[in-house]
Amino acid sequence: MKIDRERLRTDIEANGEFGDIDADEGRGRTVLTGTEPNQKAREYLVERLKNAGLDVRVDAVGNTVGRWAPDSVNADAAPVATGSHLDSVPEGGIFDGPLGVYAGLEAVRAMQDAALEPQRPVEVVSFTEEEGHEFAGGLLGSSVAVGDRSVESALALENDEGTTLAAALESMGFRGEGRLDAAEWDAWFELHVEQSERLETADVPAGVVTAITGITQCDVEIRGEADHAGATSMGDRSDALAAASEFVLDVERAANAVVADLSDTAVGTVGALDVSPNATNVVAGGVEMSVDIRDVDYESMNEIVRRVRRGLGRLERERGVETAFDRPFDLEPSRMSERLRRAAHEAGDRADIETMDLHSGAAHDTQRIAGVTDAALLFAPSNDGISHNPKEWTDWPDCAAATRVMAGALADVSGAT
Amino acid sequence: MKIDRERLRTDIEANGEFGDIDADEGRGRTVLTGTEPNQKAREYLVERLKNAGLDVRVDAVGNTVGRWAPDSVNADAAPVATGSHLDSVPEGGIFDGPLGVYAGLEAVRAMQDAALEPQRPVEVVSFTEEEGHEFAGGLLGSSVAVGDRSVESALALENDEGTTLAAALESMGFRGEGRLDAAEWDAWFELHVEQSERLETADVPAGVVTAITGITQCDVEIRGEADHAGATSMGDRSDALAAASEFVLDVERAANAVVADLSDTAVGTVGALDVSPNATNVVAGGVEMSVDIRDVDYESMNEIVRRVRRGLGRLERERGVETAFDRPFDLEPSRMSERLRRAAHEAGDRADIETMDLHSGAAHDTQRIAGVTDAALLFAPSNDGISHNPKEWTDWPDCAAATRVMAGALADVSGAT
Repeated sequence: MKIDRERLRTDIEANGEFGDIDADEGRGRTVLTGTEPNQKAREYLVERLKNAGLDVRVDAVGNTVGRWAPDSVNADAAPVATGSHLDSVPEGGIFDGPLGVYAGLEAVRAMQDAALEPQRPVEVVSFTEEEGHEFAGGLLGSSVAVGDRSVESALALENDEGTTLAAALESMGFRGEGRLDAAEWDAWFELHVEQSERLETADVPAGVVTAITGITQCDVEIRGEADHAGATSMGDRSDALAAASEFVLDVERAANAVVADLSDTAVGTVGALDVSPNATNVVAGGVEMSVDIRDVDYESMNEIVRRVRRGLGRLERERGVETAFDRPFDLEPSRMSERLRRAAHEAGDRADIETMDLHSGAAHDTQRIAGVTDAALLFAPSNDGISHNPKEWTDWPDCAAATRVMAGALADVSGAT
Repeated sequence: MKIDRERLRTDIEANGEFGDIDADEGRGRTVLTGTEPNQKAREYLVERLKNAGLDVRVDAVGNTVGRWAPDSVNADAAPVATGSHLDSVPEGGIFDGPLGVYAGLEAVRAMQDAALEPQRPVEVVSFTEEEGHEFAGGLLGSSVAVGDRSVESALALENDEGTTLAAALESMGFRGEGRLDAAEWDAWFELHVEQSERLETADVPAGVVTAITGITQCDVEIRGEADHAGATSMGDRSDALAAASEFVLDVERAANAVVADLSDTAVGTVGALDVSPNATNVVAGGVEMSVDIRDVDYESMNEIVRRVRRGLGRLERERGVETAFDRPFDLEPSRMSERLRRAAHEAGDRADIETMDLHSGAAHDTQRIAGVTDAALLFAPSNDGISHNPKEWTDWPDCAAATRVMAGALADVSGAT
């Protein structure tokens, strides 16, 4: 079986044109659910799936599936599925998501070219809104496919403009019917860029993920007293931004301490911060922040949460501010299937492509799917570990090698010979 | 001479209706240059000035003057002027600015009621855009009146919507002719709310300002690397928001150190901070901040600037971020006129109203005017020191008492007997 590197590259580059931005360096795109770039990316995928002879269906929340079920398939056999997502963060890169979707399609084409005959149907999937910028916190389409969220509640979600997901899908022509059910799959594979530097450092083109980190997102609010920046003496202030700055550094310190003492994969980040009134000549009266805490070890995540909450208590006592803390999103770490991980390593061995075990610090749709069926996540190297950025890059030979490993595992698990 | 407290209150409360906001607590208003609330506030002032028999003129940048020149006035005598501003910060209070304008008018009315006969004309002035939210950094109308900025360059200023000051004034019917020239005044008085707690703490209704602090505003930019909040290990980050948080605390620490060692009136504030991309799941790639540094001692201001710049150097070395620093606005401290300060204290003594010396930490139009003629700034107490906030409040008896002191000084300096 042979991967056609240029065919894969053509698809990823064509997809990268939708929503492309004028980046100083690299290649960026902004593909948010319901926008024209999202519609075009979806339409291109459908065209490419059909070109390869796959039957395409779109479910009620816009999850798109191309099904390959040649005559060799056993009528009762549960499918083997693979894919990822086409949406991006604002000003993201061209590989995060699309690599997995088009690697899935390329794997099917490679099996076809090699005249392999699977006993299970193979499905190539693109999930709606993995990044979660518009309608939910992330993993939207996959959360419906695993039954964690109902179709109805998903369709009723609104973006900042008050548009529902239902209306956004309708406007793109991607509001289909029924619900893609991941529990019906025998197995699921996702290939994704690593978004870290371990593969690059080890000079290995394909990673096999052992576990995906859990994620906790916390909302923190700090209330001080908005006051005149000139007339209020240093001693009379209750400066919400100074308090928030201590909090940002508390989060960093707590994560570093947990890395040192408990789990070297733990991370804690304040990436979003809004100041009111945010005026040069006014001492900040309020700050709202989001905290993102992840690890493959759930107890380590909770330890970071405990430490930053203690920090808030200290700010209340020492700075006279009021604080509020909420933990609206919490997803425990998930382990990948041993059977599928073994299949991936063996596929690498057969193709003479080196593979290595690593963990995923980023959330992926695979995390949800692991709750309802055997799931595996493979990584391709990210140059300098950069992602969610136009400088995100994976060399084309690496894309092809990682796709080759996944295709081999997919062929194996689908019973293709 | 007697101040009519209810007449003064009626004017300030009527003015507070323009642009009033629905505040949880207190009374707020948003009156930005060129908006309908600004036009209404200006029109009401013109009506009130005319009702008191003053001749009204509007200069080319919208500075509005009511002139009282009864028969007692010596034809060649330079006027004594008083006033403040009618614009507000977004969601500001009802006293900051309007108290000084209407106290000026009330002082004239009180002199009229007492049949005082000034030898100099008395002018009541409202300067365009003191707060500086729309068109410039602040003190806009007064900077033209003292010749620091030309009429042409002021009229060409644009707000965020690309509207010029010329067009904004035209749309309100307040683009007049000529240039109000503060250098032609014999003296200038401004009454303003203190925006601090010294008068309240001392239980004194009228403050006489010794000096107005200088102001430096600095723009700081910190560039790190935008990266995935889950996939980027703590050790691999160049987090612009964590670096910016250290900077915010550096500014606070530098100001506190200068307060302890050099000048207890120094202040340093980061009130505005913008993060990009400001997403929960992305390590911040860049942060832009504004720093506001003030003191009555210019060398202390410069010492704070030196310390925070050293902090930026440390962030570059320790965190691998890039930083940029600019100091686009710099106004040295200014001393108030000894002659006018003495007149104010004596007016307090005559009326049996206690007065006290203090400095001003806030910028005021008076700061500009002190460069071209004798100028004085008087303060009325601010409850809890709060301003630029709907909770800003000055009790009506305090408004009247401070106005009485100013009216007495004005009468004295204008030669009224």
